[in-house]
Amino acid sequence: MDFRIEKDTMGEVKVPADKYWGAQTERSRNNFKIGPAGSMPMEVIYGFAYLKKAAAHTNCELGVLSEEKRDLISKACDEILEGKLDDQFPLVVWQTGSGTQSNMNVNEVVSNRAHVIAGNKLGEGKSDVHPNDDVNKSQSSNDTYPTGMHIAGYKLIVETTIPGVEKLRDTLKKKSEEFMNVVKIGRTHLMDATPLTLGQEFSGYVSQLDHGLKALKNTLPHLAELALGGTAVGTGINTPKGYAELVAKKIAEFTKLPFVSAENKFEALAAHDAIVETHGALKQLAVSLNKIANDIRMLASGPRSGIGEIIIPANEPGSSIMPGKVNPTQCEAMTMVCAQVIGNDVAISVGGAQGHYELNVFKPVMANNLLQSARLIGDACVSFNDNCAIGIEPDQKSITQHLNNSLMLVTALNTHIGYEKAAKIAKTAHENGTTLKEEAINLGFLTAEEFDQWVRPEDMVGSLK
Amino acid sequence: MDFRIEKDTMGEVKVPADKYWGAQTERSRNNFKIGPAGSMPMEVIYGFAYLKKAAAHTNCELGVLSEEKRDLISKACDEILEGKLDDQFPLVVWQTGSGTQSNMNVNEVVSNRAHVIAGNKLGEGKSDVHPNDDVNKSQSSNDTYPTGMHIAGYKLIVETTIPGVEKLRDTLKKKSEEFMNVVKIGRTHLMDATPLTLGQEFSGYVSQLDHGLKALKNTLPHLAELALGGTAVGTGINTPKGYAELVAKKIAEFTKLPFVSAENKFEALAAHDAIVETHGALKQLAVSLNKIANDIRMLASGPRSGIGEIIIPANEPGSSIMPGKVNPTQCEAMTMVCAQVIGNDVAISVGGAQGHYELNVFKPVMANNLLQSARLIGDACVSFNDNCAIGIEPDQKSITQHLNNSLMLVTALNTHIGYEKAAKIAKTAHENGTTLKEEAINLGFLTAEEFDQWVRPEDMVGSLK
Amino acid sequence: MDFRIEKDTMGEVKVPADKYWGAQTERSRNNFKIGPAGSMPMEVIYGFAYLKKAAAHTNCELGVLSEEKRDLISKACDEILEGKLDDQFPLVVWQTGSGTQSNMNVNEVVSNRAHVIAGNKLGEGKSDVHPNDDVNKSQSSNDTYPTGMHIAGYKLIVETTIPGVEKLRDTLKKKSEEFMNVVKIGRTHLMDATPLTLGQEFSGYVSQLDHGLKALKNTLPHLAELALGGTAVGTGINTPKGYAELVAKKIAEFTKLPFVSAENKFEALAAHDAIVETHGALKQLAVSLNKIANDIRMLASGPRSGIGEIIIPANEPGSSIMPGKVNPTQCEAMTMVCAQVIGNDVAISVGGAQGHYELNVFKPVMANNLLQSARLIGDACVSFNDNCAIGIEPDQKSITQHLNNSLMLVTALNTHIGYEKAAKIAKTAHENGTTLKEEAINLGFLTAEEFDQWVRPEDMVGSLK
Amino acid sequence: MDFRIEKDTMGEVKVPADKYWGAQTERSRNNFKIGPAGSMPMEVIYGFAYLKKAAAHTNCELGVLSEEKRDLISKACDEILEGKLDDQFPLVVWQTGSGTQSNMNVNEVVSNRAHVIAGNKLGEGKSDVHPNDDVNKSQSSNDTYPTGMHIAGYKLIVETTIPGVEKLRDTLKKKSEEFMNVVKIGRTHLMDATPLTLGQEFSGYVSQLDHGLKALKNTLPHLAELALGGTAVGTGINTPKGYAELVAKKIAEFTKLPFVSAENKFEALAAHDAIVETHGALKQLAVSLNKIANDIRMLASGPRSGIGEIIIPANEPGSSIMPGKVNPTQCEAMTMVCAQVIGNDVAISVGGAQGHYELNVFKPVMANNLLQSARLIGDACVSFNDNCAIGIEPDQKSITQHLNNSLMLVTALNTHIGYEKAAKIAKTAHENGTTLKEEAINLGFLTAEEFDQWVRPEDMVGSLK
Repeated sequence: MDFRIEKDTMGEVKVPADKYWGAQTERSRNNFKIGPAGSMPMEVIYGFAYLKKAAAHTNCELGVLSEEKRDLISKACDEILEGKLDDQFPLVVWQTGSGTQSNMNVNEVVSNRAHVIAGNKLGEGKSDVHPNDDVNKSQSSNDTYPTGMHIAGYKLIVETTIPGVEKLRDTLKKKSEEFMNVVKIGRTHLMDATPLTLGQEFSGYVSQLDHGLKALKNTLPHLAELALGGTAVGTGINTPKGYAELVAKKIAEFTKLPFVSAENKFEALAAHDAIVETHGALKQLAVSLNKIANDIRMLASGPRSGIGEIIIPANEPGSSIMPGKVNPTQCEAMTMVCAQVIGNDVAISVGGAQGHYELNVFKPVMANNLLQSARLIGDACVSFNDNCAIGIEPDQKSITQHLNNSLMLVTALNTHIGYEKAAKIAKTAHENGTTLKEEAINLGFLTAEEFDQWVRPEDMVGSLK
Repeated sequence: MDFRIEKDTMGEVKVPADKYWGAQTERSRNNFKIGPAGSMPMEVIYGFAYLKKAAAHTNCELGVLSEEKRDLISKACDEILEGKLDDQFPLVVWQTGSGTQSNMNVNEVVSNRAHVIAGNKLGEGKSDVHPNDDVNKSQSSNDTYPTGMHIAGYKLIVETTIPGVEKLRDTLKKKSEEFMNVVKIGRTHLMDATPLTLGQEFSGYVSQLDHGLKALKNTLPHLAELALGGTAVGTGINTPKGYAELVAKKIAEFTKLPFVSAENKFEALAAHDAIVETHGALKQLAVSLNKIANDIRMLASGPRSGIGEIIIPANEPGSSIMPGKVNPTQCEAMTMVCAQVIGNDVAISVGGAQGHYELNVFKPVMANNLLQSARLIGDACVSFNDNCAIGIEPDQKSITQHLNNSLMLVTALNTHIGYEKAAKIAKTAHENGTTLKEEAINLGFLTAEEFDQWVRPEDMVGSLK
Repeated sequence: MDFRIEKDTMGEVKVPADKYWGAQTERSRNNFKIGPAGSMPMEVIYGFAYLKKAAAHTNCELGVLSEEKRDLISKACDEILEGKLDDQFPLVVWQTGSGTQSNMNVNEVVSNRAHVIAGNKLGEGKSDVHPNDDVNKSQSSNDTYPTGMHIAGYKLIVETTIPGVEKLRDTLKKKSEEFMNVVKIGRTHLMDATPLTLGQEFSGYVSQLDHGLKALKNTLPHLAELALGGTAVGTGINTPKGYAELVAKKIAEFTKLPFVSAENKFEALAAHDAIVETHGALKQLAVSLNKIANDIRMLASGPRSGIGEIIIPANEPGSSIMPGKVNPTQCEAMTMVCAQVIGNDVAISVGGAQGHYELNVFKPVMANNLLQSARLIGDACVSFNDNCAIGIEPDQKSITQHLNNSLMLVTALNTHIGYEKAAKIAKTAHENGTTLKEEAINLGFLTAEEFDQWVRPEDMVGSLK
Repeated sequence: MDFRIEKDTMGEVKVPADKYWGAQTERSRNNFKIGPAGSMPMEVIYGFAYLKKAAAHTNCELGVLSEEKRDLISKACDEILEGKLDDQFPLVVWQTGSGTQSNMNVNEVVSNRAHVIAGNKLGEGKSDVHPNDDVNKSQSSNDTYPTGMHIAGYKLIVETTIPGVEKLRDTLKKKSEEFMNVVKIGRTHLMDATPLTLGQEFSGYVSQLDHGLKALKNTLPHLAELALGGTAVGTGINTPKGYAELVAKKIAEFTKLPFVSAENKFEALAAHDAIVETHGALKQLAVSLNKIANDIRMLASGPRSGIGEIIIPANEPGSSIMPGKVNPTQCEAMTMVCAQVIGNDVAISVGGAQGHYELNVFKPVMANNLLQSARLIGDACVSFNDNCAIGIEPDQKSITQHLNNSLMLVTALNTHIGYEKAAKIAKTAHENGTTLKEEAINLGFLTAEEFDQWVRPEDMVGSLK
């Protein structure tokens, strides 16, 4: 491989000749060979591109950067955002906890790319756009990395997570309405209970997701707060007056998302409770989705020796050994995602709790877990929706059989003959393997007519909306 | 011990003669000898007392319960709320996951206590107030237990957790203002960095708690939703028309808290995402408090060989072997609480994710963890506040010494002479054990006058508000 | 309340006149009002009593404590171990993270109790046995608390946890043998699969618990290492020569458990990886038990509209509203315990990871979680065993019906006619609602005789041992 | 893109013409667009390659597969193991929870590659080696996937994790020996305490890692148990006699690792407690490493306003804004890894606890977390070792200054003048800002000569080994 020589304040480093990154990126590559290369999420890099561009514009507007440099930086950032430079960011999550090296990776790539955009050749001459003095002007890793991760997280959540969850929510809502009159047995403690409709059952799922979406949206204002302008320790040293507010405004403009400057920059560098807060809501969604997916696979279990009250789409052969088997694979993918998100929440808590003084140095691991969870939930909801939820149908035969068998219809008699007599009917029928009606009459507690009038599953499901 | 005979649908049971509980409570005592007796939180029992009273009033108003029974039930519930019957609730958290047995414990105690209030003797004759048909009228364990735990959780959070956190927040705010002009060294990566003021540092803590309080309050509307009226499976079987809304209104009235009837009762029985959501915010507070308490103990470390920039109150001898030692014990209690809350969050997630069909049967464990966390955070904040935070003072000598030593003041030169030259000054001073000023001049990068004018810690801390 | 005055190095404190504790205990009571009083586990106090007694004997044997003092200390410790002084330990878990205050609580109680045993009156005169100089001789909180918690944990695990798990394991083993020839349908992905026997299914549970017990026992050698002798920072300052080994030997003798002196005392004070390790094994057991209990409640679900392949004991009325309902309540208690233990594991990890320099100050929270988990698992296994597992019986009718219905018996044809043809038979039968045999013949893939010969569930379950 | 048509039991699917995978892989690609493509760990694929080869050999030896097919399968598997077919495995972790689709991916690739190895063209004619009937012969996804993940995990742990941890352990051991006589102040509760040597401090880290390694090795026998031979539900349906033992032997031979056939195949399919167990030990190591890395960064903090008792290598410029700053970046990478591993442990517990009946369907998520943690810990230890630990040196100036300042040297006086007088000396010196010696004499408790004789830090550190 060909190399060129790059320098930083520590000396010279050999860098692959065809790459835009510089000395500090290369040092990080060598010093942090932990896990697969390039694990730093691309979304964070894009977040950096937005903020570097916004900073260049702001610096220029506030008179500390030339228009020429602003434009060079902007163009390089735009290329990053267009995905043209994806292979220029080889660093891993497991680097310095401030993400300094990824900040420098971006600074170096922008600097060298600007050099080329300006008509020069990579590695020949010095870029007019200095990675620290220009690209990083009015910035520190300590405020850029958290800004980058907030941009990345916010965007991913509003563009992928929320739409994904809403898509599934809408399908479940539609199913809930379609199934609103399908009376079926209820189950509590996994045991036969009083009836409800399949639509009511699904309405509970919808309500869970509605609450989860609301909880997630509640966290967004905190996530919209940007650290940028705090620079090294939160005081904003080396920033021109008015910088923090203006740069946040520009980021909001470029991303079309409602970012604001964090009111307190000391918190914004030293703690990442916004990540903790947002991920807490993702974890809540994981808890909800686990319940929903698990219910659906239990309801679909069988086909002959399970519950079998709903039918889910058969998307692939289910077994490499059992011919004809179809499995609730989308439910499984979903519940695995949920397990991961519940685990990620702990990783984030552990990282978030251990900030020291002016800086939390668990930034990349927190960002990585947030982004993974946000992506997985969004994608898994779409996958579950398209390949499972939209195709769910009731299996009326099974539903009817289970409903009519149930001893818990006896509950309807409580208000007529009291709990104790009702219990006696149920227990006798259970012991004798008979029906409630038979035993109700045998025991002399009521007449056949009364039974037929009082024990009507369709009257036991309350109001249907 | 003396016994009397009680009966339920399964037969006779011997019960301690002087206790108000009945057959089902006694069965649970015998069948669930798991951990210490009486672990079911008293707050949940009080939540039950509120709802049983509200149900009696509602049932009466809707014409399905006599005024006499209503009054007897109400009186017994009031006695529970006054703490007079605390020793009548011997059951454990580790019982049925619906909390049925604690619901029956309350039903039985109210029934028997009503019998006595009505002028009878415990164990003689049958209570006019039947535990199932009257006390539990229009109810099921499946909707009462979650209602009880929401009441318990909501009350505890608004009465203990939030005031506790706010108390600490207010003290830290006051300290932040007092210390706003105490310029000190900043530390990032635990390493010397550019200066900030001690007040700014504390303002970050205040901002963390402000965000945490807001996050916690955001969760309260979900927690205010009551399952009552859903009865067995969410359909509201065996409830009179209008019951759910009215009973929620009465609970709101009796507790003076803004409870409402859950819009979707199926969710309210089958999932406890409200608990997940609220505890998520408690966990966020734990993450924040861990950072704050940890910072404070590091800042107070020493007295002679640590950081020692603040002084915290000495409340007790710190060591059984090292005479005169004083330790940051309140910080330690706080961080232990934080560890517990982070763990409790996982217990709640695991329980919340595993609901089946119409019922989540992890209710008591979820309630117990929520209540423990809410209590511990509230209490720990008050303890930390009263015994530590209010007494925090800066150690000016140490602060000044650390500030003046710092090489990171060089950052102020970036905008004057560029990052690379500034770095050279700092590195040379570090190697030679000299001051920045000496080396700045030696290296010929600036004059002594320029140094004095540009490197002023008090000018490096930004605007102070 | 009456008070007497006690003193420590910080001055005078008013203490309840009838209590044996002294100034430092009282300070802690006042300074740490966090959660319910007395939450410090009694097992830890008993651990202290063992070690204080052992230390007195060792100190005496090594010539630094008089025989008289040794005997007084020993007697007081014996009284603690007999449970006579349980009300003398009012402190909470949420105190100093070294547990110093509980160490002093024990020192003070032993000192004052010794005074009384020596014939004096509490509060009159000064005890000959000084809490620090005698009871705490050759000790520090930093080595006593971890020693106390190791003793407590080890004892509880070998006396409660392991016997409890083994009891359940033995019952499941017996059931596995009883049910070894009960051929039933298997289920993978919750879907009908090839057959196995109920005994085989249960043998998997046994194997899980066997592995879990082995894993737990693997952790005991680390837990058997005692910190005592390390004193303040691990160097053993202020201990006589030979002390550490001798005191461990005496503790082993008094407890009849194989305790040894930790080879490295610096680790033993600064980290509690032994707790992390042991609790990791408890968490593994929780994971296993959750699977087992969950399977059992699913297999027992119904009675008419569930799986219903086993019958579990009906121990209590299951519902306050649905008469005659019986629920898998022991499974629910067990799975709630499992959720708690999984959460506790995180609390322990968070505490264990945050030791600083020579001392981990999350000792009480780590001890508390370990002890709670060890207790809950042991108790829950016994409860589950006695009230559920021993009464499990197959429901042969249901088992036979499910088995004969299954389409997955077709798997037996793979080796005769290939996977693809076998799949075609199963799918056709599924679509037409017919039997495998009918379709196998219709499709012309085999004869009725071949089918009967090849598709025999009892031949599909492998060797039964 | 060019396509060819592949078929499975569900019909035809278009597959990229140049890829070896078939219909089921392609279905999975389309049905599970969750997270980045190809996330199924390559280590699992290699595990499959070992087992497919071993199965072919076993099947041949037991007379159910021809030698020709055995050789074709073996060759294709060898190519996978040589990394030649890495781009043939595009599936994600978030697929069916049995990993069936990855099993089929391997079956299909082996089948088609065998076709080409046999001299045919991909997509022309039908492979003589059928993916189900030959490559998957005597297997099911249900036993192959867990076998593959055990092989992957075991290999990674013995080849990467353990050597990595041992490397760091050995360096710390060497440092411990080098620093054994460097007397320094101890710190408990972050506060000045009695002295120890830097070597003693490091010996605690060594002991932690020694215990962690032992704990990890204790888990390997469980991980060495292979599910293969259990096929669909654990009964071994469709396997020839003697298959399970022989195939495990062959895997052991091919991998040179001590794999054995799991004694109980029902557990091996339905539960993955071995993964839980092994990861529990990785989590313990994470807890230890977090403590160690955190201590090292605190000890290295400064350079001028921190603790600064050790010097760690400066590997890269530490700050994009603060010139000359050097940060403990390796400590940060390590502690971020620890946070991730602690989180992964929860994901594994959640997955492990939720198996149903004969199959746990959280296999891929469990495998993925195990492998990530094993890789990260191994890599991070090497990185930390090479770039930090090996270069650690004491900063003697700082160490001496801290030691001599300490008030806790007073502890040495306890055994001479008692705890209370010693405390008085320390407190007076603290208040007056004087030395212990001055106050000891002023207070008249001892003479200057006695002080010099009794208070000698080098005598307070116990025996040095």
